[in-house]
Formats: sequence, C-alpha cells, structure tokens
Amino acid sequence: MLDSQPRLAPTLASRITNLTGSVARDILSRTQDRHIVSFAGGLPDPELWDDLVLPPAERNAYQYGPSEGEQPLRELFARELDDSGLHVPFTQTLVTNGSQQAIDLACKLLVDPGAPVLVEAPCYVAALQNFQLFQSQLVTMPLSADGLDLDQFERLISQHKPVMVYLNPTFQNPSGHCYTIEQRQAIAAILDGHRSVLVEDDPYRQLYFSGEPPPPPIASFLTRASWLYLSSASKTLLPGIRIGCLAASADLFPHVLKLKQAADLHTNRPAQMIALSLMADQLAFERRLATVRRHYQAKRDAMQETLKRSFAQLAEWTPPQGGMFFWLRLFRNVDLRAALEDALGQGVAFMPGTAFFPKGASHPSAIRLNFTNPRRGDISKALPIIAATLRNEQRSYYPARSQS
Amino acid sequence: MLDSQPRLAPTLASRITNLTGSVARDILSRTQDRHIVSFAGGLPDPELWDDLVLPPAERNAYQYGPSEGEQPLRELFARELDDSGLHVPFTQTLVTNGSQQAIDLACKLLVDPGAPVLVEAPCYVAALQNFQLFQSQLVTMPLSADGLDLDQFERLISQHKPVMVYLNPTFQNPSGHCYTIEQRQAIAAILDGHRSVLVEDDPYRQLYFSGEPPPPPIASFLTRASWLYLSSASKTLLPGIRIGCLAASADLFPHVLKLKQAADLHTNRPAQMIALSLMADQLAFERRLATVRRHYQAKRDAMQETLKRSFAQLAEWTPPQGGMFFWLRLFRNVDLRAALEDALGQGVAFMPGTAFFPKGASHPSAIRLNFTNPRRGDISKALPIIAATLRNEQRSYYPARSQS
Repeated sequence: MLDSQPRLAPTLASRITNLTGSVARDILSRTQDRHIVSFAGGLPDPELWDDLVLPPAERNAYQYGPSEGEQPLRELFARELDDSGLHVPFTQTLVTNGSQQAIDLACKLLVDPGAPVLVEAPCYVAALQNFQLFQSQLVTMPLSADGLDLDQFERLISQHKPVMVYLNPTFQNPSGHCYTIEQRQAIAAILDGHRSVLVEDDPYRQLYFSGEPPPPPIASFLTRASWLYLSSASKTLLPGIRIGCLAASADLFPHVLKLKQAADLHTNRPAQMIALSLMADQLAFERRLATVRRHYQAKRDAMQETLKRSFAQLAEWTPPQGGMFFWLRLFRNVDLRAALEDALGQGVAFMPGTAFFPKGASHPSAIRLNFTNPRRGDISKALPIIAATLRNEQRSYYPARSQS
Repeated sequence: MLDSQPRLAPTLASRITNLTGSVARDILSRTQDRHIVSFAGGLPDPELWDDLVLPPAERNAYQYGPSEGEQPLRELFARELDDSGLHVPFTQTLVTNGSQQAIDLACKLLVDPGAPVLVEAPCYVAALQNFQLFQSQLVTMPLSADGLDLDQFERLISQHKPVMVYLNPTFQNPSGHCYTIEQRQAIAAILDGHRSVLVEDDPYRQLYFSGEPPPPPIASFLTRASWLYLSSASKTLLPGIRIGCLAASADLFPHVLKLKQAADLHTNRPAQMIALSLMADQLAFERRLATVRRHYQAKRDAMQETLKRSFAQLAEWTPPQGGMFFWLRLFRNVDLRAALEDALGQGVAFMPGTAFFPKGASHPSAIRLNFTNPRRGDISKALPIIAATLRNEQRSYYPARSQS
C-alpha cells in the first residue's frame, strides 16, 4: 500500500486550520439509512419529481448527493488509475468539476500568500492563473525537449522549499513533452527527500499514439512525499459535463474532501451518471479510447505533414507522441500579438506561447497549435496562413535584416 | 438602471489584483464564429460524439462552454429576478454550481485574512464554514423574531467596516425569518452610506405560503453600494443538478466572472440544459412553483400541528411563512449533542442550533427541523421521539431541579 508509511507533514496553508467539516453533512451521512427519519437536512421532497419530464436518468440523481461523488464512478476512476500504475483505493478519490476545480482545491489546500510554487516553463495557462490568484511566488524550471534538468530541479526545491510542485508530465500542455520512466523515478526520489507536495496534472494520459501507454504517474513512485493526482474525463469523453477525478495521498484526502464540500457541496449528478454510463462497460470504454487515439493520431499526422511544408524555415518542434498540441519554437522573435491579430483577420487562430509563462519570466518565442478540434481539410488550408503572418511579423520585427 | 450611478469602490481582496483573464478564453470567445479555424484552444473533436449513446441532449452541450453559462438560461434567471423586483440585465448573471459556489466566489472576491464579515446570528452553516475557511473575522448581529436591530446594524457597520454583509433575508436558514419591505429599505439605506458589499443569499424566495410573494430583494433598493445576489434552482427544481445563479452589480461582475473561470471553467452543460428545459415554458414553470408551494405548505401545516402537541412545554417558535425549516428556541438549556445521539439511536435526526453560530459566539439553545423531506406520516410519529430526547436531556442538564 502506497500509504503504509507516514507522510512528511507538508506545510498546509494557514487557512486549513480553519477548515471544519459540516455538522449537516456528518448527520446526512448517518441518515443515508432509509429507516432514519431526518429533520436534520434541508432536502427537497423527491415526490415532487414524479411528474417531471426529463431526459432518462435515475431519479435519485436529482437529490443532493455525497461530496465525494458517486461511489460507482469513483471505483471506475480508481480502476483506471490502478491500470496506469497508481494504486489508490477509491476512498481516496473525489469527483470534481473537471480538473480545473482540482487545481483550485490544491491552491486552497497549499497556497498562502507568498508561498513558493514550482512549475515547469512553459506551464498550463489556467494553472498559472490560479497560482497567481492565490498570490503564490512562482518559481519556474525550463522544460526542454529532453525534459527537466534534474540537478536544477533538486537545487530549486532545496533553495525555495516550494509548498507545491506542479507537473504535467504526460504530453504536457503546451509542450507535448512526456517524461520517461527514469525521469519520473528520479523526480519521485528527489520529492521524497523534501516536504513539497506533488500536484500531478495528468489529463492527457489516455491520448497516446505510440501503441504503448505512457509510464506510470510520478505519484506512483513516491513513498514519503504527499501528493495530489488529477485526472479528467474531458479529453477522452466529454468536456461539457465537467467531470474530473482528484486522488490524494491519505494524509491530504480528508482536507481536500472538506474543501470540495465548501466549494460547491458536490459535483452535479446527471453529469456523473453520463460519465458512469460511458465508463461502466470496460471493454466498450477501451474500444472508445482506442477510437479516440486513432482519430487524434490521424489528425496529428495530417498536422505534421502540413507543418513540414509550411514551417520548416520558421520553427522547430518535436511531433507530440500524444495529447492535443504542437509546440513550435520559432527561430526568430516575433510580435506574436500582432501576428495573432493578423491571423484572426484572416479567419485563423493560434495561441501565443507567452501565455504559458509567468508574467515577467523570460521565455522563447513559441506558439501552440491544437490539432484535435480543427477539421482535417482546414488544417492544410489554414496553417500556411499562420506561417505567412509569422513571416510578415518577423520582417517588421527585424526591419534592418529584412531590408538587407 | 440600477447601475447608472458610480459605485463606492469597495475594498476587494488583495488577491484580486492578481486576477487576470485567460488569453485562451479571450481567443475562444472570438472564435465562436464558425468561420474561424482555431488552433488556439484545446477542444476535443465533436465528431467523436456522433456514435455515443447518451440521454437526449443537444450535442453541443458536450463541448466546453462559456464561463458565464448558457445564455438562454441566464436570460430566464434574469427574467425571474426582474419579476422579483431586481432589475438586472442577463449580462450581469452567471450560472454557478449551486449557490454554494457563489459563496466561495464571494469569499475569493472580498475576503482577505482578518477581513471583517458581518452575518446574522443564526446564519446558514455552510456560509459560516466558508467565511472561516477564508480566515475572515466574523461579526454577528442577533436575528430575533422581529428581525435585525437596525441601530445595532448601522453601529456594527460603522465600527467594523465589514468587507461583506451576508444576509439571507427571505425565509432565512435556519430561523425562517422573512424581512419586511420596510426593513429591507432601511438596510439598503444604511448600506448605501458605507463601502461594505451586500451578499444577499436568497434561495427560498419562491417557497412562500402566504399567497403573496415576499418583498423585493434588498439589492433592488441599493443605489450606491455594490452587491452580489444569489439564487438557486435547488429548492424549486432539482438540487442534484447543482444549478445556481449569481447576479452582481456592474462593478463586481467582471471580477466574479474571472473567478468562476479560474474555479472550474464553467458549470456543466447537461445540467444547465435540464434547468433550461424546466424553466423555458413560463406558464409550466409557474404551475410547477405553485405545486411546490402547496406541497410544502401542507407539510409545514402537518409539522405545526404535531409540534403544538409535542413541543408546547419545551420550546417556542414562529411557524415559517416559507422556506424549509422550523426554528425551535428551547425554554431550557439542553446538551444537544447527547439528545441528537439519543434520537439517532431511535432512528430520528434533527439539527442542533449550535451549528448556525460562529465558534465561541453566545447563542440560545435551539434546534432546526426540516419539513420538506420527511414523509407526512413520519412527521407525526418521529417528532414526539425528538421531544422525548430533549425532555430527557433537560432532566440530566438540570438534575437538581428535576429531582426537586
């Protein structure tokens, strides 16, 4: 068992000492027994729903539910984590409103104003937003095509003692980088020697194109450090239902559960039922994942072919082995805002790389291109337009050279 | 227009200066136009959903959606607020995961550690939890059967300068109290002379039994103070779908929207579609509200009859004119934890009043009884059991007197 050893007692946000469970919820959990007549809660009367005409769903999905989420869905998530190598009982999992909510809960759990948070550079933009919102002090480590510099990683942890190390190690957003098993083990070994909490954001794990699943989560190699692990149904099933799964080491789970309760009582139940219906038949779910991989791999291939034709003189990139993005490092600096305006004017959008770095941090000139949503026919037509806007802006950025 | 006058520039949490919009979302909002080919976002491919067998819903409800919520649903919420007297454009409304999430957003918006928050005593328990989680300094004002003492209210505001005044003025949870129109106007007038933000939590407004709707929201009488107004579909429609509505004065709305985006991107869309389907036909929705009122009124009446028989010697109460709760003020102090244990052992639950006061605050001995969920047959059987446990605990609390 992952949690047979005592944890290192990580530094929690001072606000966590104020975090109390709800008497209401405690009583509620003891009144699930239908023989108890409860005047304790504030539940509406389900008799009122008999005559409602609604999409088919279990009627009890319309009542208030547990903060943890539906048990059958938590069991399926735990099974999925188990298959990936992270052995955690379903009792340490929690259904969230997508993994974005899990980042909010992680911040509430760990980040006091001024607390250091260690992130990859580049880093998922909406995670950066939250770390800044919670007034953390962001410490960045460059993520190159070879991964992290492990010596630097250890040095930064020793020096800054971050309350949180936030990593997105599997087909990272935006870089597409996937950490090797050796890197994962080495990172886990370093984390086990410090009190930082690992927050491993892993929504793209199932979107692999090589035929082989990615290496196990970093959290699965930890023996002493505390961790949160974030998974999501948004990339494999449906994003609009906002269903994610947060797993936590045993020491952290009770806090996270109370934070979820304080945030919104529980994740909406019809959406949980939809996820459950799509994941319950394991064979059908595996078939679906295989279809998703094939579909996105074909789009990745189409994008790679067009990029080779249009971007060879402009940028370098590593074709992603999974996930949803190409990360193009431009050979020359470009005013990306201007290039984006230009492209939008021609009906094409891309994401400037600037967004993936904390304000004021140095960063290479880069752009992120999503390949999962655009239609294949549009890919070959629209990418050359982006290339042209970049070439244009290069010329105005280096007028002397373009005139020479 | 409510927002034609400048606001008083309320004190926002220092974290709000760190709050930035997401480039991703900005671009996304500009690429709703189907003619734009977007490589900017990270949207999955909706083609993959063609073969999914799911409850009937619009297919586009499965893609990522706007942080504000579905526009048709926001328009319906705005219409409902308009009917109640709060005239606010739908562009200042936001669909939340129940009103609990709106409380979380209000705390993020306003509460720095140590910031004073003014609440009624008693107060909704899960609001207290959040105010404590955000390390506020809670200032309480007793809420009697006559309402607030307005002189005290003004004195507390002048003295403590609370960043937030949190009120639940319509069939308050737990007291059931409904503020009169004169009280609402007087409170609004006081708030307009200070910089405190009103957070008006109003989930029970539609559950009135007198035939006449309750007076307009306090927020509708404000001309200078900033405000948030919280509504919910949980009490009138379905709690399990977690659909609430947050409206805000124009100065606060942009911040709240960014906070919602950082919290979980957006509220799940299938649940919004369910709410929409139940609210879209205004006549059918009105009929439904009338049914809900009649149904709960009959239960309130059944409870009142049994209470008169079983509790006349134990407690005093005002029969609630709406909402979901009786609030019984006990004539003598009782160890409510022990009484609750005793009652649970006999298959009956109630809520000790202690939960509705901040830790350490003085409070009367009281219990809260919900009348909407227990079955009518159970009400008459189970309430005498609670009365018996209270009598028992009174005896052990006052052994000398009970032996005399």
